[in-house]
Amino acid sequence: MSTNDSATSGPMLGTTVDDVRRQNLSQVLRIAHQLGPVSRAELTRATGLNRSTIGGLVQDLHERGLVGEGDVARTKKVGRPSPRIFVTDDTVAVAVNPEVDAIDVAIVGLSGRVLHRVRYRNERIPSPAEFVNIVSALIAGMIPHAQGARVLGVGVALPGLVRATDGFVLFAPHLGWDNTAVTSLLSDATGLNVVALNDANCGAIAEAIYGSARGSGLVVYLNSGASGIGSGIVLDGRLVTGEGGHAGEFGHTLVNSHGRECRCGSRGCLETEVRRDLFLEAAGVADVTSDDMPALLAAAWGDASHPAHAELQKQVDYLGVAVRTIVNALNPRLIVLGGYLAHVLAVVGEETVKARVGGTLPGGLDDVSLVATELGDELLLIGAAERVFSPLLDDPTLVPAREPAAV
Amino acid sequence: MSTNDSATSGPMLGTTVDDVRRQNLSQVLRIAHQLGPVSRAELTRATGLNRSTIGGLVQDLHERGLVGEGDVARTKKVGRPSPRIFVTDDTVAVAVNPEVDAIDVAIVGLSGRVLHRVRYRNERIPSPAEFVNIVSALIAGMIPHAQGARVLGVGVALPGLVRATDGFVLFAPHLGWDNTAVTSLLSDATGLNVVALNDANCGAIAEAIYGSARGSGLVVYLNSGASGIGSGIVLDGRLVTGEGGHAGEFGHTLVNSHGRECRCGSRGCLETEVRRDLFLEAAGVADVTSDDMPALLAAAWGDASHPAHAELQKQVDYLGVAVRTIVNALNPRLIVLGGYLAHVLAVVGEETVKARVGGTLPGGLDDVSLVATELGDELLLIGAAERVFSPLLDDPTLVPAREPAAV
Repeated sequence: MSTNDSATSGPMLGTTVDDVRRQNLSQVLRIAHQLGPVSRAELTRATGLNRSTIGGLVQDLHERGLVGEGDVARTKKVGRPSPRIFVTDDTVAVAVNPEVDAIDVAIVGLSGRVLHRVRYRNERIPSPAEFVNIVSALIAGMIPHAQGARVLGVGVALPGLVRATDGFVLFAPHLGWDNTAVTSLLSDATGLNVVALNDANCGAIAEAIYGSARGSGLVVYLNSGASGIGSGIVLDGRLVTGEGGHAGEFGHTLVNSHGRECRCGSRGCLETEVRRDLFLEAAGVADVTSDDMPALLAAAWGDASHPAHAELQKQVDYLGVAVRTIVNALNPRLIVLGGYLAHVLAVVGEETVKARVGGTLPGGLDDVSLVATELGDELLLIGAAERVFSPLLDDPTLVPAREPAAV
Repeated sequence: MSTNDSATSGPMLGTTVDDVRRQNLSQVLRIAHQLGPVSRAELTRATGLNRSTIGGLVQDLHERGLVGEGDVARTKKVGRPSPRIFVTDDTVAVAVNPEVDAIDVAIVGLSGRVLHRVRYRNERIPSPAEFVNIVSALIAGMIPHAQGARVLGVGVALPGLVRATDGFVLFAPHLGWDNTAVTSLLSDATGLNVVALNDANCGAIAEAIYGSARGSGLVVYLNSGASGIGSGIVLDGRLVTGEGGHAGEFGHTLVNSHGRECRCGSRGCLETEVRRDLFLEAAGVADVTSDDMPALLAAAWGDASHPAHAELQKQVDYLGVAVRTIVNALNPRLIVLGGYLAHVLAVVGEETVKARVGGTLPGGLDDVSLVATELGDELLLIGAAERVFSPLLDDPTLVPAREPAAV
């Protein structure tokens, strides 16, 4: 697997022996964070460091309250369970996901688990000021549940465009938000550090760490939700954000020169042509639950006389065109489909979508797999929390060691 | 500038103190390699390392024959010139670029300069076996000119698709090559290590190091040459190759659903719609030199009654559609245009192309600049050599220190 060519790299800051310690602490913490409880032997293998170095690093992380060690029988192997290093949930992030119908707020532990979650149902779509009021009150109510844990900050998974540098919300059309400093407002109201990230980028990160895209390589995530088709690119485990934080908007890839007008100002974008509501309309169905969607899609796919058959065929063609552009542009290892797209993939199959691509250069289409998301509805919250954990995972010395017991 | 989000990264090998030394040697060598002669003070500033550490690193690189130090007056500043560290050309690569009409072979020094270059004019397009015979004979003739320099290997800039893992040539349509192990044949014939890379990727690397795209960030390179439109993506100074080495084929981005059939099996790709030959055909001109192209384009652009006016207008529209897809997909800092596309850009102007984009999400189009390539016809050779230098730039300890003089 080769996704990054080492032919060149820009000047970088020099490395000191202190940096080495930080990097090694980071690597051990990230491994435990991503893989779950691991033995010291596994850490030794994964890092190439010797056993005594690993011992020192684990001790350091333990003193900072970031990891614990204990018998965790996770495998079916015979024999007594070996003690394992696990990430503690003594450090947490608050994750927030405002959507049209509800606002989800969760406490997520550094282990990646959602510890506590509440859903506020909107009577109407909240303004940025209302959002800040609601969320800061919810957080004030939830923090005591964090049981004295260290709250690192708040991560917002936002259905819109967020400026990478400062979290300024440029455009969240479905919420009707436009050029709003909602992250700094929320920070002022809560006294916590707040970061915001496009929701599809949150999903991409979460899938890349815990879901279908685990492992390195180049991964494109496409999610069809209530806010159109969001997308994110993950390269060797890191989100590609682009210059201003807007990379990965494959929902606005041209699939039909004569297609419908798109809210982006163009026409025939993937998200204007491949749509759950257009399929339902063709099927003559007002709405279906997520559970019933596969059966409806299967009925339409398998029966040429079904009223939505032609619409679904057309949508699969357009999905193929988008896959063609993605494969030619990025030659990814995986395209992860979520929401309505995952349902479509499950019914029509990967090979059918690939057959509709209509032509790519040799190689690219063989390299790629189309898969459905693995994580459930906690996806965006986990990804938003991950964004908050990121600086600590890069440099665990950001949190101090606990006071040693007095002699 | 933020192009890579640090929200997550996969497990990595641990870092040892030896690695630190290697990394720092690499950083000093890369800075001198990319920026040209630098003072010790500049190295101290750029790396954050202290003066004595820099001194030791420079000494080490000098003992390996990779850098020298001397008075190089490069600036107009008043005062005596301070001694500067420069990369020596005692280490070289052979760069090869087979094209339809000629094969270029050059000796390129580690400083990035083309030291010696020959052009073999093809009477007819060579087969892979003929190519190997010609190039190995040329190399045998040229190596003595390397004056005892260390020849690191051969880099081939190939107009086609190359598998990243082993340089196997999957498809070079203009040469009529298909599934050929030409790199290993050339390696057998010369006894040298041979690497091959898509020519547009070579151009992207060279522009990213020495040309218009110097500096970090996300850069997309699009070059319209005899072999269609090649393309490459450079992220923070590193080529994004994708899973199999085929990333960055934006020449096959859909720009017209009802466009011409493309050799890739699809239709309406950027490279089938935006073409020098279609413009010349509309203009009723058999061919023009590169020097005369700007005047012809300007005449067609400025005069609605010119026979090629409508064709050029249409091509600029399609270029805008491709820019839209690139901007939405990657939110780059720069799109670097080469060949015919650079000529079109010069005549119609960046703002005109941006105005034809037809809609992007907010942000992305403001972030991007469209610029022409800066490097001349040595671009591909420099990029191919860079690929050969890459492992040494990453780890200068790959070459031994010279024997110390006997006491």
